Amino acid sequence: MPTTMLAAVAYTYGQPLQLEQVPVPAVAPGRILVKVAACGVCHTDLHALDGDWPVKATLPLIPGHEGVGTVVAVGEGVTNVREGDRVGVPWLYTACGHCEQCFTGWETLCPSQQNTGYSVQGSYAEYVLADPNYVGLLPDELSFEEAAPILCAGVTVYKGLKETEVKPGQWVVISGIGGLGHLAVQYAKAMGMLVAAVDVQDDKLRLAQAVGADLVINAATHDPVQEIQQQIGGAHGALVTAVSRPAFAQGVGMLRRRGTLALVGLPPGDFDLNIFEVVLMRKTVRGSIVGTRQDLVESLALAAAGKVKVHYHTERLENINQVLDDLRAGNIDGRVVLNLAL
Amino acid sequence: MPTTMLAAVAYTYGQPLQLEQVPVPAVAPGRILVKVAACGVCHTDLHALDGDWPVKATLPLIPGHEGVGTVVAVGEGVTNVREGDRVGVPWLYTACGHCEQCFTGWETLCPSQQNTGYSVQGSYAEYVLADPNYVGLLPDELSFEEAAPILCAGVTVYKGLKETEVKPGQWVVISGIGGLGHLAVQYAKAMGMLVAAVDVQDDKLRLAQAVGADLVINAATHDPVQEIQQQIGGAHGALVTAVSRPAFAQGVGMLRRRGTLALVGLPPGDFDLNIFEVVLMRKTVRGSIVGTRQDLVESLALAAAGKVKVHYHTERLENINQVLDDLRAGNIDGRVVLNLAL
Amino acid sequence: MPTTMLAAVAYTYGQPLQLEQVPVPAVAPGRILVKVAACGVCHTDLHALDGDWPVKATLPLIPGHEGVGTVVAVGEGVTNVREGDRVGVPWLYTACGHCEQCFTGWETLCPSQQNTGYSVQGSYAEYVLADPNYVGLLPDELSFEEAAPILCAGVTVYKGLKETEVKPGQWVVISGIGGLGHLAVQYAKAMGMLVAAVDVQDDKLRLAQAVGADLVINAATHDPVQEIQQQIGGAHGALVTAVSRPAFAQGVGMLRRRGTLALVGLPPGDFDLNIFEVVLMRKTVRGSIVGTRQDLVESLALAAAGKVKVHYHTERLENINQVLDDLRAGNIDGRVVLNLAL
Amino acid sequence: MPTTMLAAVAYTYGQPLQLEQVPVPAVAPGRILVKVAACGVCHTDLHALDGDWPVKATLPLIPGHEGVGTVVAVGEGVTNVREGDRVGVPWLYTACGHCEQCFTGWETLCPSQQNTGYSVQGSYAEYVLADPNYVGLLPDELSFEEAAPILCAGVTVYKGLKETEVKPGQWVVISGIGGLGHLAVQYAKAMGMLVAAVDVQDDKLRLAQAVGADLVINAATHDPVQEIQQQIGGAHGALVTAVSRPAFAQGVGMLRRRGTLALVGLPPGDFDLNIFEVVLMRKTVRGSIVGTRQDLVESLALAAAGKVKVHYHTERLENINQVLDDLRAGNIDGRVVLNLAL
Repeated sequence: MPTTMLAAVAYTYGQPLQLEQVPVPAVAPGRILVKVAACGVCHTDLHALDGDWPVKATLPLIPGHEGVGTVVAVGEGVTNVREGDRVGVPWLYTACGHCEQCFTGWETLCPSQQNTGYSVQGSYAEYVLADPNYVGLLPDELSFEEAAPILCAGVTVYKGLKETEVKPGQWVVISGIGGLGHLAVQYAKAMGMLVAAVDVQDDKLRLAQAVGADLVINAATHDPVQEIQQQIGGAHGALVTAVSRPAFAQGVGMLRRRGTLALVGLPPGDFDLNIFEVVLMRKTVRGSIVGTRQDLVESLALAAAGKVKVHYHTERLENINQVLDDLRAGNIDGRVVLNLAL
Repeated sequence: MPTTMLAAVAYTYGQPLQLEQVPVPAVAPGRILVKVAACGVCHTDLHALDGDWPVKATLPLIPGHEGVGTVVAVGEGVTNVREGDRVGVPWLYTACGHCEQCFTGWETLCPSQQNTGYSVQGSYAEYVLADPNYVGLLPDELSFEEAAPILCAGVTVYKGLKETEVKPGQWVVISGIGGLGHLAVQYAKAMGMLVAAVDVQDDKLRLAQAVGADLVINAATHDPVQEIQQQIGGAHGALVTAVSRPAFAQGVGMLRRRGTLALVGLPPGDFDLNIFEVVLMRKTVRGSIVGTRQDLVESLALAAAGKVKVHYHTERLENINQVLDDLRAGNIDGRVVLNLAL
Repeated sequence: MPTTMLAAVAYTYGQPLQLEQVPVPAVAPGRILVKVAACGVCHTDLHALDGDWPVKATLPLIPGHEGVGTVVAVGEGVTNVREGDRVGVPWLYTACGHCEQCFTGWETLCPSQQNTGYSVQGSYAEYVLADPNYVGLLPDELSFEEAAPILCAGVTVYKGLKETEVKPGQWVVISGIGGLGHLAVQYAKAMGMLVAAVDVQDDKLRLAQAVGADLVINAATHDPVQEIQQQIGGAHGALVTAVSRPAFAQGVGMLRRRGTLALVGLPPGDFDLNIFEVVLMRKTVRGSIVGTRQDLVESLALAAAGKVKVHYHTERLENINQVLDDLRAGNIDGRVVLNLAL
Repeated sequence: MPTTMLAAVAYTYGQPLQLEQVPVPAVAPGRILVKVAACGVCHTDLHALDGDWPVKATLPLIPGHEGVGTVVAVGEGVTNVREGDRVGVPWLYTACGHCEQCFTGWETLCPSQQNTGYSVQGSYAEYVLADPNYVGLLPDELSFEEAAPILCAGVTVYKGLKETEVKPGQWVVISGIGGLGHLAVQYAKAMGMLVAAVDVQDDKLRLAQAVGADLVINAATHDPVQEIQQQIGGAHGALVTAVSRPAFAQGVGMLRRRGTLALVGLPPGDFDLNIFEVVLMRKTVRGSIVGTRQDLVESLALAAAGKVKVHYHTERLENINQVLDDLRAGNIDGRVVLNLAL
């Protein structure tokens, strides 16, 4: 085991990451050490690095919450994970295990949670510590690169779709066909839903169709609310992955009566919810944040069964600052995965 | 049967009602004629009379959707209601019976519905026509006056409480202890909930305590969000009956993680929903509108069992314009019931 | 319109049907007359004709509750169906519309229901009366012959699958791959489930695989409980379509903890439920009977979308007694549809 | 800390317990040592001691899974419990924490679970070891004696009532008003249900009325199925606490259509379930076993709020064999609690 490792470290909000050698973390009791094989790059990383949110990320910080790799050391008292296991280290680094949320299978809402690549060190590095109670076990069918984006992007949209309460045979709108949306279309199809994809770019809509969307609407050239209401009588649910406030309002408008909108993006500010529409048509608006351990098991299983394929391209860790700039500029197609072996 | 009847009729939006003799409506096939004994006065009547909403009430209009009385004539083909039955004629006058909403027990969301005292004539009159498939049968234990406010105010809060998905033993906040809120406190207690009542007037909070609230907070002197979070760790659900946009935002803030806010009021305009809070804490905001026929059966049964008592005072139909002025000015305690026999 | 029609009529329990000319029924107020194009033959017809059940079928009886055809006359007061509409006349001929079951979208449980081809005349005839409030509208994509078996066999297994509460991505066992089971496999796949098919005949299992089963087990050569527990850790749900008491007990055994068994068949007698297994593993056993109007809409829509194809062969009405004998003897593959135009 | 303690130990199935001094167990890493103040005596203890079940209790065994007391030593790595905490040590001693059941808040169904007083040593002793992740924290409002029976009897019926899916305002039947049933009546009332109590002894029914039952039926003198169907149209749910096979069949018969029967008792053998009744009336039969940690929190909270009071009498540990004989003979009213300080 080496004593130092390459890592990308943030020292100041809003500044580029420093690529440098840092000590390999020592495995502690109840913890495991994972040799990182790959790590997806998520939009949330920008918020962490820019200090956007009310509770800011801890500095200095190694970001990365879509890390996957192999367990290389196991701390005292760990019984459920062994050296050599292939695991993913998700956004939910650990939780208390004893609150109302943890007791009921909603550990992602634990008020005492720690978050990988935010309040604790993440996977933009050759090694990462993890809590074995919260890692995901990777199915053999998935390569590390294929698995990485499921750790956050995949499970987030899978859970978001569950939260729309759309049943098989009913319509769901996926608004925004980017890194999250193109996965959402596939998960929705695997869940038996009818899928309407909405975006402002034709190439994104072509991708949506290629992965199974039943209906596509270009919101730049057509009013998506009017189209969805006319063509299918409104959707039973909608998942907004676009971090855009107009997309949120359109999401409500595209619902049929009794429909549910799930929000998984985190644009700053408020969302103007029309009270009359929400009350008279009994609409529901609900936030959703990543997914539980069981959601992760299920979202990985669907990917392993070939139902969901991530569109991604790989980069070296050394190029992370360029990747982040591209992400900030909206120039990323699908998902970027850092391959630590490159 | 007389040929004319006293009725309060609106001819122009925003003008007082005309008290005049009009023809008693003729019973049609599939309809019943009800001799009105009493009718509650609802805040919605103001919106109808003022033409506030996007789809306006039909003029000339006899308002009133909390009418109760005795069936005095039964149209051809009617089999489920008989002369002499005591019934209530609710907001949902009729629905199509064949759409997705009607098929699934959500007839209150039928796009083809008609509404009593809005799109068809209501119960501010000595007689009213009704669709026997949509009237409520009144339990013997309830007088007409006691039953009338259940037809809209009661069933609306009962349904709204269901829509919060709060379970027995969990906390619900009732925001606004007026005509709706004082009933909501009682329904919530009958449903096994722990109740926190929030209002800006101490006399309203004393009423809330008298009818069973476990905790009361004066939002004029204390920050209700801070109080609810500190004292009970946030509520599992909240029902906002106050037609106030600040009350809506506070409603979200008073929820614990995974909580649900149900809105039953219809203030004009938008509601600023904080995206960060909704997503990270997986909160849900949901509109709710009156209640279904089954909800009406249940809400009447709880009142008949003595679990819910309406605070009301009676007025003569002749005084309706004064009542509406008082309602508009916020000078009504509890509920006003017009007694047609006075 | 002719005044007489060909019909197959039962006069005595346990005797062959009489093929004879009978008067075409007169359309009554609130009813429609349907020219029958096709009618599926269901195992329940045998129970009706043999007088098997506690409440017996009304004699003389024209059986048939999978009739489909064209509306040729509309009674007074009917507004939701027009001449020329293509409809199906299901088992649920009519219901009261006002009980707790009807109010909540469970009209199939109405205690006052009438049943087509059982308590009222059915579709083994050239014409049949129907209640327009309870017929199913046939999608254009389905021929009459393709649609007929959905009216009972299709909707029954679709509803039964819902009642297992199995979610997309979870395992369901379909036990018995006959007229019902081969449809159940397809509906389950359309609903996103993983499907294990169990039967005692290899040709039935080959059919199951051909229509999408992920796993097949021959219960004549292998212990299905042991196989399902070993291979997949038990199923989340099971649907028993086999009318066999051993199949029921195996159904419980194939469940994983917290699993649900739905029963849709009606073998006579009792089912020995092991209390220890049910309590310690929190298993659920639930009956399910046909499906509601909304279930029928959904099951027809999935067939219209090409997700479900019925394996059937057609016969002339004149051959009905031979068909019933074959059905009694277990010699029918898939489903028989009577084509009234042959 | 003493080195030995008084304990009641089973060495052979079917033989009386030996009261003897045994070593106080040493606290291990991840475990806590609890000084037992009181322990309820449960019918399950008889099954353990008689070796009744397929998987038998480990011998030699100290029974007792309703133990409550004070934490006197905390093992290495324990962070969520401290010395001096008042805790209960329930039937679920520990679970794996990582299976599908554990991930979804159903740890009581974990296949790897250990059970207190069955597969590990229980609380018929002055000290007991516990896993701090699975103990219940006792509310200050409850004395040790009052709390003990909630640990199993209370939480079992509370969970069983949840599993009936009966909603506030609906009817539930409680069959058997003994140690479990008298608690079930109170929990059901606290949950807003209407309660019909059924037993064969008038004194039990008087107790049921005294604690809130709305209707009581003596099954020795009246047919409870007929009474319940006639008087209330059948119950929405039923909880059978009587360990009697006839009571199970009556439980199904007392349900209205779409009702659910929850079984919490464990009589040996099978239960004859009438298929026709279950299918045509869409009835549900479901096992239920103790309750989860969250259920325990909630059931303790309802007791702490004064909604549920246990009828019990106390005994010295030295009298345990007499208590077990009385329990076996059906001579116990309510619940027996061993007070270790006596």
